[in-house]
Amino acid sequence: MQDTKFTVAIHILVMLAASDKNLNSTDLANSVGTNASYIRKVMAILNEHKIIASQRGKSGTQLLVSPAKLNLLDLYQAIEGTDPHIFQFHQNPNPACPVGRNIKQALFPFLEDAEYQLQQALKKDTLADVINRLTNLERSRHNESRPTD
Amino acid sequence: MQDTKFTVAIHILVMLAASDKNLNSTDLANSVGTNASYIRKVMAILNEHKIIASQRGKSGTQLLVSPAKLNLLDLYQAIEGTDPHIFQFHQNPNPACPVGRNIKQALFPFLEDAEYQLQQALKKDTLADVINRLTNLERSRHNESRPTD
Repeated sequence: MQDTKFTVAIHILVMLAASDKNLNSTDLANSVGTNASYIRKVMAILNEHKIIASQRGKSGTQLLVSPAKLNLLDLYQAIEGTDPHIFQFHQNPNPACPVGRNIKQALFPFLEDAEYQLQQALKKDTLADVINRLTNLERSRHNESRPTD
Repeated sequence: MQDTKFTVAIHILVMLAASDKNLNSTDLANSVGTNASYIRKVMAILNEHKIIASQRGKSGTQLLVSPAKLNLLDLYQAIEGTDPHIFQFHQNPNPACPVGRNIKQALFPFLEDAEYQLQQALKKDTLADVINRLTNLERSRHNESRPTD
């Protein structure tokens, strides 16, 4: 995975969960630090997976899923597909060679297990966990910057 | 990670471990199913990390590490760097926004933990494990293709 769609999606969802104002793609782009068309591309994916409801032309985008029920694996797979292939296999090993004809099958279980462990880790964390941590971080910033009397 | 250097590196190392002949980049490219220059690029990385010893102009490449002592994480990090960034962060969140100024720090521990779990899974498997599985696969192919009498 080489693009930022996943972390941008999380950013968007945190914004939607945290704000009581209607936010459009320009507002979101301003916070994410990208252009509105990239935001709309990510929102289209979230829309398609019924994580948000956003209609072109209508103002306001709604979060359809409770943050505590949206785990990071579901979100990752919504963005990247259910088989995101962290490890890319070479496609044309030589079937006439004993190594070439077996390498994929020999190696696949090890790489698949590693990806599975990553997925299980993402699965235990939710959007609500990210929001909680973010809220605590923001709160401690305020406490730090408050003058002591 | 979007290229195939990691699985190609494993393929090369299995070949070197399994063969008692001197193999050059053309032999290896023929088994991997790619061109010799891509093979030399991967071999240069393996060389640099003292996993193999291969000298341009001299024939023969040697494996410097015992397959049982080379785990897949060490190899992955040799190829991709020690911080391969499965998850790409958007680079310019807005510091004037409470979400923008905290999102990276809020999200990072969750993503870092997921990458750590993937790494731990890779760490427990070695090149020798891949070779053993490959040897068993090749053996069962032979048994299947042997006519029953």
